[in-house]
Amino acid sequence: MNAQTYSWRDLSPLIAPESVAIVGASQRGADAVLAREPRGNRVIRNLRNFGFTGRIVTVNPKYTEIMGYPCYPDVASIPEPVDCIVSAVPNRHVPDLLEAAANAGVRAAVVFAAGFGEIGGEGKVRQARLEALSKDRGFLICGPNCYGVLNVHGKAPLFASTIPPGFITGSVALISQSGGLSTTIANALMLNRHVGLSHIISCGNQSGATVEEYINYFVEDANTKVIAVFVEGFKQPERLLAVAGKAAAANKPLIILKGGRSDVSKRAAATHSGSLAGAAEVVDAAFRQGGIVAVRSINELIDSISVFSCDGFIAKYRGGRRIGVLSGSGGECTLVSDAASNVGVEVPELTEATKASLQESVADFGNMNNPLDGTGAMYDDDKIFPRLLQGLVDDANIDIVTINLEANDPRPKELKSGNRFTLAIEKAAAGSTKPISTFSSVVGGPVDPEILQPLRQAGVPIMEGAECATVTIRNLADYYDFQKARLAGGGEVPFPVAHTKLPSGVLGAEAAFALFKDFNIPVAPTVLTKTGDEAAAAADKMGYPVVLKIESAQVTHKSDVGGVALRLMNSSDVRTAFSNIQSTVTSRVPNAKIDGVIVQRMAGEGIEMILGVKRDPLFGPVVLCGLGGILVEVLKDIAVGIPPLSRRQARDMLARLRGFEILGGVRGRPAGDVTALCDAIVGISNLAASLGDQLNGVDINPLIVLPQGQGVVAVDAVVEIE
Amino acid sequence: MNAQTYSWRDLSPLIAPESVAIVGASQRGADAVLAREPRGNRVIRNLRNFGFTGRIVTVNPKYTEIMGYPCYPDVASIPEPVDCIVSAVPNRHVPDLLEAAANAGVRAAVVFAAGFGEIGGEGKVRQARLEALSKDRGFLICGPNCYGVLNVHGKAPLFASTIPPGFITGSVALISQSGGLSTTIANALMLNRHVGLSHIISCGNQSGATVEEYINYFVEDANTKVIAVFVEGFKQPERLLAVAGKAAAANKPLIILKGGRSDVSKRAAATHSGSLAGAAEVVDAAFRQGGIVAVRSINELIDSISVFSCDGFIAKYRGGRRIGVLSGSGGECTLVSDAASNVGVEVPELTEATKASLQESVADFGNMNNPLDGTGAMYDDDKIFPRLLQGLVDDANIDIVTINLEANDPRPKELKSGNRFTLAIEKAAAGSTKPISTFSSVVGGPVDPEILQPLRQAGVPIMEGAECATVTIRNLADYYDFQKARLAGGGEVPFPVAHTKLPSGVLGAEAAFALFKDFNIPVAPTVLTKTGDEAAAAADKMGYPVVLKIESAQVTHKSDVGGVALRLMNSSDVRTAFSNIQSTVTSRVPNAKIDGVIVQRMAGEGIEMILGVKRDPLFGPVVLCGLGGILVEVLKDIAVGIPPLSRRQARDMLARLRGFEILGGVRGRPAGDVTALCDAIVGISNLAASLGDQLNGVDINPLIVLPQGQGVVAVDAVVEIE
Repeated sequence: MNAQTYSWRDLSPLIAPESVAIVGASQRGADAVLAREPRGNRVIRNLRNFGFTGRIVTVNPKYTEIMGYPCYPDVASIPEPVDCIVSAVPNRHVPDLLEAAANAGVRAAVVFAAGFGEIGGEGKVRQARLEALSKDRGFLICGPNCYGVLNVHGKAPLFASTIPPGFITGSVALISQSGGLSTTIANALMLNRHVGLSHIISCGNQSGATVEEYINYFVEDANTKVIAVFVEGFKQPERLLAVAGKAAAANKPLIILKGGRSDVSKRAAATHSGSLAGAAEVVDAAFRQGGIVAVRSINELIDSISVFSCDGFIAKYRGGRRIGVLSGSGGECTLVSDAASNVGVEVPELTEATKASLQESVADFGNMNNPLDGTGAMYDDDKIFPRLLQGLVDDANIDIVTINLEANDPRPKELKSGNRFTLAIEKAAAGSTKPISTFSSVVGGPVDPEILQPLRQAGVPIMEGAECATVTIRNLADYYDFQKARLAGGGEVPFPVAHTKLPSGVLGAEAAFALFKDFNIPVAPTVLTKTGDEAAAAADKMGYPVVLKIESAQVTHKSDVGGVALRLMNSSDVRTAFSNIQSTVTSRVPNAKIDGVIVQRMAGEGIEMILGVKRDPLFGPVVLCGLGGILVEVLKDIAVGIPPLSRRQARDMLARLRGFEILGGVRGRPAGDVTALCDAIVGISNLAASLGDQLNGVDINPLIVLPQGQGVVAVDAVVEIE
Repeated sequence: MNAQTYSWRDLSPLIAPESVAIVGASQRGADAVLAREPRGNRVIRNLRNFGFTGRIVTVNPKYTEIMGYPCYPDVASIPEPVDCIVSAVPNRHVPDLLEAAANAGVRAAVVFAAGFGEIGGEGKVRQARLEALSKDRGFLICGPNCYGVLNVHGKAPLFASTIPPGFITGSVALISQSGGLSTTIANALMLNRHVGLSHIISCGNQSGATVEEYINYFVEDANTKVIAVFVEGFKQPERLLAVAGKAAAANKPLIILKGGRSDVSKRAAATHSGSLAGAAEVVDAAFRQGGIVAVRSINELIDSISVFSCDGFIAKYRGGRRIGVLSGSGGECTLVSDAASNVGVEVPELTEATKASLQESVADFGNMNNPLDGTGAMYDDDKIFPRLLQGLVDDANIDIVTINLEANDPRPKELKSGNRFTLAIEKAAAGSTKPISTFSSVVGGPVDPEILQPLRQAGVPIMEGAECATVTIRNLADYYDFQKARLAGGGEVPFPVAHTKLPSGVLGAEAAFALFKDFNIPVAPTVLTKTGDEAAAAADKMGYPVVLKIESAQVTHKSDVGGVALRLMNSSDVRTAFSNIQSTVTSRVPNAKIDGVIVQRMAGEGIEMILGVKRDPLFGPVVLCGLGGILVEVLKDIAVGIPPLSRRQARDMLARLRGFEILGGVRGRPAGDVTALCDAIVGISNLAASLGDQLNGVDINPLIVLPQGQGVVAVDAVVEIE
């Protein structure tokens, strides 16, 4: 992906410590009932219950022992420095405590307390001290304003929340900025999906370790295969694409639910975790470019994790988005087809071979369509269901089989139907080279462990609801396509070349066009002239027709003040137009300082686009493009890309425009030169990557896309340098 | 709404029979285990368990008694005709059975068997006999291919599926074309939402009674307050708006989940219930115009039913879409804000008064925002939650309060937090004049009856997931707005005037324009002329500039063959243009039969629209409009309306165009005369309603919308008569 490589800190002392000190536990808390138990004591109980094998000490000036572990008056008095301290003290004591810990040779801390950056004022001051500790001394901090770190394989739960019995060990690392959602999601994964976890990180305000760093840790962690994230804001967005690239190379799906898309939710995120949210479209573009599985709701997150982490299922998946659906309900057949169509998942017709073989093996049965409606017959005759299922598994048109199964039927056991097919599905999965999944009609109700667990073990994930199931399959297919394209190459991006520092302010036309030429963006021949004779000579040299435009920092709407002359066909017309422009502009805008008159070769007829660069608060300069006129101005039909961009990414950007079809030629007009347009996008993205933060914005308007083979040409542009 | 009134059949013999005969039960089936029990015996068991107080007889030539009820050899032998028979016999026997029943004076039948219209061939023949019986003799039929009728208050379950114990009696009537989904949805409503039902109708192929008839029955049924429907196709779509209007007038929300939107799902619907699905956009338009609550998934259906049927909640709702959210999870605050923003639900800032009073009563607490993040503090101190909740209830900016409550936490009871707040919510609801609801973060997991039931009784509905919760609140607010607008008037539609029968084929320009004038659609002055002199005279009379266009049925693209002359300023130019057009078209299209040359006053500059009528397979002629050019051609930005339309509906149509803003004036152009445009839409909708099925299509292109106060003018049009 991104050519940039970063050095990453080793988070082991924080996530996989061999020794910990709990600060904030007390002897009185040892017998408290669950809800009232001090967090420090709860951590000790969690460590003990989970079987932590490292050293545990506690810190409290009042005691010499807490819950059987040695207790010291302060961090400095701990005989041998621990890897990590757990801070369960009020927020006002935290900065001093962490500084003392760092001084004592401790390398990491988990901080539960809230009341930092998210509340502003003194909280911000406190957080600044933590950030300095992290940045200047490399001290690792999880939090503040969080539940902490739960390393499942390492049996190290530095975690503020009670851990339910029957915790499932597995390969999913869950990172959540929200403590509450970290446990809500984890419990739903384990109890409603039988998905096992490798870690839970509730990272709160990210004053020390960032979401990007945690992701990097899990990319390198042998116990983790799938990385799932709920995040409100990125602290190191410039590293996000780099770490996403590492995850892709390691074949570890990175699934992210990003909160804070709307204005109100940005306000909420700011007060919740003090996060800056950035523009939703820019985040979307970054996720797409990084092959990040972007999900939009908690349930989509849960079902995507469930499917991506189901080894038996994934091992059989060979790409494609053609599903074969089996249901006992004709109504669900209709609804799942609608849901599939909404997200671009295909429900193809079955092959004639399948239809014929099903008709033979399932005598006197209805139409053999996809979705395959087993009707009441599949409940009345136990032989029917396995045959129908096998028909879908064997069908050459199908990539993924999914069975409508009510694993979450709230009725008493004897009235449920879902359980009847579990064994048949297990058998089919055992013999199948094709991935098999299931989904329920209703989302909700208790998921029956007698269905869930054996199916999960057989490599058959359960999803809830046709909408979530189809979007999850779409996510899987998109991820597969991303990986395939990545491995196929063609995603090379130009290496950002260093560029000379440019002067501040708005660049003149000649300077702007010279800059474009450096990055291979074709421009209309353009010369700034001071006299009519100069203009005529320039026009003779570039060829006719030409356009004259006034050049003055004080004139923004040139044609409104008589500052433009179009379609000039010879040198005498150019001379006349030059003097007309000069006198008209001077009389209409008396205070204008006139730099001269631009002579420009008139571009041919083509499709007008806008192409530009804008600064995003998180991701820095981003590339925008759209079709000129009402599509951009009224419908805001704009595609976004994070530089540097490859040609493939440039084309993907264009294809996302609602008006993309126009580039192919509509209403009798010729198709535009999309290849040249992609090159121009690559060029401007390289310009943005090279100039970086000195670039405030670029607005090429219009960029004329000429007919195929004739290229593109930038006609007018504003470039603003910081 | 629709001025049309229909006569409706009385479905009482089918839905509320006082006597029933079960055909297809047997003595051998009486002891069968549940799953293998013959459907006839199951119905008898259902009737007995439910406490049916009417007469029960059975029909089977082998016995004189089944399960304690008298048995007769055939329907004709039943001593006194029953209201309704239940047909649990194979499909091939059904037509004879029903005809015999009708002959014996029976008035209705429930038919379970599949194998009718949905399988084509002989099934279609069978279904035709049932349809004839219904149509010609008024015999009422539920099904075939269904689970039948369950009248809860009447204790009459003529229903093929086992009815779970603890069935909840209530005010929701559920109509489902799918048998499987009827019970899936009903069970989820009762067990996951504690919603009670008045009826379940599984109506299958609708060969007799239609969805529209069932809705009408429930509009008139005193036990039903909310009508919920899953439907794949409408059999009497022309009656849908009429019955929706009746439901609106009776203040009974009509909530419909319509399957079969995509091409694949239409195929599925056709084979499932033999339904014709119609264009999704047309159905959407009909639902909008009828005030039908259109939902898009089973879960949205369940949550909408849950909220609309929660009397205590609805009684307090006074309109508005401003929600106040209370959560203990900052992450959920962010996500619910995103979800709200996606569906147009507002999350306003709290008033300063609320902020001040909360700050005082909840000392040392964080930011007082909406969503209100109770943080861990609300779990640590029981006094905090009620105060925060009361703050939202009392806030003048809030219409609906919704609390993020994990009522579906899958963990063991002692670890759950949701239960802690139930009592506080009940108390707040008892004292509140504002509606209070709850929603969970995750959709799924067992809903705890100890939270669900007391809250429901307190008028606090539970919804699952931020997405479903916010869309449900949006549905409620939309319904309220619809009712308010309906009562406020302004929705009057022109009464369709009878119009003379028009000749078949494509109307000439003069005839088409004359038709438009009859319906108050302004047209450019247009005269068909035969000679240059006639043309010049016509032009002199209408004033310049004028346009000349060839009139010939053989010429469709007039300008391509030299058949158009624009901007003619005087009579001599008109004469020249006339002869040029005649000679050019004659030479280019030698076989063209030329009817003459149209002279038309050139319209002023304005915004080009298209306005037309198209025939939908279900709803007949429907009105379309859109902005000319790429918006219609590339982006398919078209609004649909079902005639006849009121001015308010015409304006609503326009407001749904993505390019609507253009009518307000963009890029320096003046705003268009939207009032006149609405009148033109009303006019064409009245034209469509009046001409009805003799109209194949109308395409006015362009209709020029002149600047405000200057009206609109139809410039070119094709009208096709059947």
